[in-house]
Amino acid sequence: MPLLVMKFGGTSVATLDRIRRAAKRVGREVANGYDVIVIVSAMAGKTNELVGWVEETSPLFDAREYDAVVSSGENVTAGLMALTLQEMDVPARSWQGWQVPLKTSPVHAAARIEEIPTHNINTKFAEGMKVAVVAGFQGVTEEGRIATLGRGGSDTTAVAFAAAFGAERCDIYTDVDGVYTTDPRISSKARKLDKIAFEEMLELASLGAKVLQTRSVELAMRYKVPLRVLSSFEEYDPNAGTLVCDEEEIMESNVVSGVAYSRDEAKVTLVSVADRPGVAAAIFGTLSDGGVNVDMIIQNISEEGRTDMTFSCPTNQVARADRAVQEAREKGLINYHDVVVDNDVCKISVVGIGMRSHTGVAAQMFDALSSEGINIKVITTSEIKISVLIDRKYLELAVQALHDAFGLEKAG
Amino acid sequence: MPLLVMKFGGTSVATLDRIRRAAKRVGREVANGYDVIVIVSAMAGKTNELVGWVEETSPLFDAREYDAVVSSGENVTAGLMALTLQEMDVPARSWQGWQVPLKTSPVHAAARIEEIPTHNINTKFAEGMKVAVVAGFQGVTEEGRIATLGRGGSDTTAVAFAAAFGAERCDIYTDVDGVYTTDPRISSKARKLDKIAFEEMLELASLGAKVLQTRSVELAMRYKVPLRVLSSFEEYDPNAGTLVCDEEEIMESNVVSGVAYSRDEAKVTLVSVADRPGVAAAIFGTLSDGGVNVDMIIQNISEEGRTDMTFSCPTNQVARADRAVQEAREKGLINYHDVVVDNDVCKISVVGIGMRSHTGVAAQMFDALSSEGINIKVITTSEIKISVLIDRKYLELAVQALHDAFGLEKAG
Repeated sequence: MPLLVMKFGGTSVATLDRIRRAAKRVGREVANGYDVIVIVSAMAGKTNELVGWVEETSPLFDAREYDAVVSSGENVTAGLMALTLQEMDVPARSWQGWQVPLKTSPVHAAARIEEIPTHNINTKFAEGMKVAVVAGFQGVTEEGRIATLGRGGSDTTAVAFAAAFGAERCDIYTDVDGVYTTDPRISSKARKLDKIAFEEMLELASLGAKVLQTRSVELAMRYKVPLRVLSSFEEYDPNAGTLVCDEEEIMESNVVSGVAYSRDEAKVTLVSVADRPGVAAAIFGTLSDGGVNVDMIIQNISEEGRTDMTFSCPTNQVARADRAVQEAREKGLINYHDVVVDNDVCKISVVGIGMRSHTGVAAQMFDALSSEGINIKVITTSEIKISVLIDRKYLELAVQALHDAFGLEKAG
Repeated sequence: MPLLVMKFGGTSVATLDRIRRAAKRVGREVANGYDVIVIVSAMAGKTNELVGWVEETSPLFDAREYDAVVSSGENVTAGLMALTLQEMDVPARSWQGWQVPLKTSPVHAAARIEEIPTHNINTKFAEGMKVAVVAGFQGVTEEGRIATLGRGGSDTTAVAFAAAFGAERCDIYTDVDGVYTTDPRISSKARKLDKIAFEEMLELASLGAKVLQTRSVELAMRYKVPLRVLSSFEEYDPNAGTLVCDEEEIMESNVVSGVAYSRDEAKVTLVSVADRPGVAAAIFGTLSDGGVNVDMIIQNISEEGRTDMTFSCPTNQVARADRAVQEAREKGLINYHDVVVDNDVCKISVVGIGMRSHTGVAAQMFDALSSEGINIKVITTSEIKISVLIDRKYLELAVQALHDAFGLEKAG
């Protein structure tokens, strides 16, 4: 029997009515001849409520107890979804992480999936169960304690089940109807993509297009699990949404697939750093130890044995970065004259696997920004992505200009 | 290390503040030198919310999924209580039913406890854990599914743990400060009892004094677990509450310990039933199959081969009783001329182990009621209890008169 994994996020199961709506989609795939594994999140808002209680109880909480508390939201949805399916005469039962068992590492609140034995669930499929409803986001450690995968971990749960059970596809139902060439709130010309390559999706996800958790895309890419992102609020359509797949399955495409942005970036410059071997390692080791997620890095040309070191990070990590480098200077680990912070920048990126075989994309990008009078402050590139830091006030203008310049309103 | 079991009901853990208050009591017993097993209910209102969702989703729900959903409330409280204790530097961890594992029968939503292996929890006590916080009301079946013990099952969980671990005592924290000679809302002379025998408590519990779940008292009696009922809202006092214990531990006591009542009773008479062998079995078998909880039964003197058969049951089961006997008559299983229902009666009972060695209690009771002009409609007696049905309008009067007549305002 072919098998599908269907994952429903918090907004898709926020009420009993929405659970019923989601169950109808599951029922339709069962009628289409599939066995289905459904992965559910907690009802929207529930996990935040539980996390709030834990944090109020114990600011520096024991992550094992955090996991025991916050995992309960998914258990409720899983049971309710199984009951809803049963009401529709679809043989279903719920599974909590420890019942599967989904085995994880003992890193509570940020566990990694180690193994998903298929025996228990497959035995029930063999006995006539058509749908296994699994509580997402949670597993069990070797010690027999509940461990959660970190926020958004239900996407990762879904992909891991699809890989373990050899599912034909993993459908991620969410509150958007697919992956767009850019944020439709910023460009009215944004177009939904029918297909996108795993690599592109990874870049977009890490750039803040919050459709899928990054880890889930990495996992899907590694195990070649076709992922479909679609809305649980649209009418049923077998071709709905966006398929995230291997690039070989994408016949023809634009050189650039999408324009992404990250609004709240800061540019931090350490002025007049001694330019000698090991200094970069000292600085970025210090920042990493301080919990700062450094993104872009540039080093200016050295003058008289000193240089400026610039990096970007989220604005809410600037204070942490400042503290980290000051402490390191006091300990004599690093040396600089001053810290200059620009809190009013944003990052704009163009992404596309076509860039591997096409040249001139960077020039075309810089040209489009220059035509609008937008000054570029920092540039980084990867094989399939070019990112720039610009003044935040130009964010919308830049996204629209690049979307036009690369002709993204039309399919490739 | 001596061990205590402490159970906190829903109102005692209804908010984070109340959980903190409960945790302080636990911390004090740890400071007194005890290892403690804490049994927690769901935060007040949570279980009802979950049950509501299940019933709305699926009126004839699969009890296995019901259990998976409703058990989540206790898991949340257990984790929060463990975190609160940790914040107070008391080494604690939470245990869900399957982690203990508390093994139950597979009768979902009304499971019975089969076994509580002590190994897992005792290993952690040996490693330095001082408090095991256990989610009440739930266990796990041999098939690995969650099973709940039925409403109020956390009391039973607590007593079962006390028995399994050989606890010195089982303290049940609730929203009343002990067991009273009668309902203080009805008689201002009601007096809190320092001690009460298991048998007496059982009679009072089954008569509607809803301090403890009946099953938990039965279990405590069987395993001779001293139970203390006390309020979580009073200041700490090592002698607070009421101790429910073996009657040998009660040195001196009144002949009657308490006056209980049950307000919503109905008296049902089947008029002119054929008086032949097997007719009572047919009638009460029919009622039992129909789910009617028959309490008192009386059969009038037979005249000309026919008799009247009277029984009492809760008023909300009268319709069910009526339907059951009508159906049985249509099938020719039983025979009667008419059904006469008196919906306006209540039951008053006096309870006391002293009745075993004292005579004249019944006469004294009837005399007290007669002095107030209260007519007795039905009488039943057991070894330690006398119950009467009277008109409901006399309920308060009767309770007060009996409380006075047996001198319950003074300790014996």
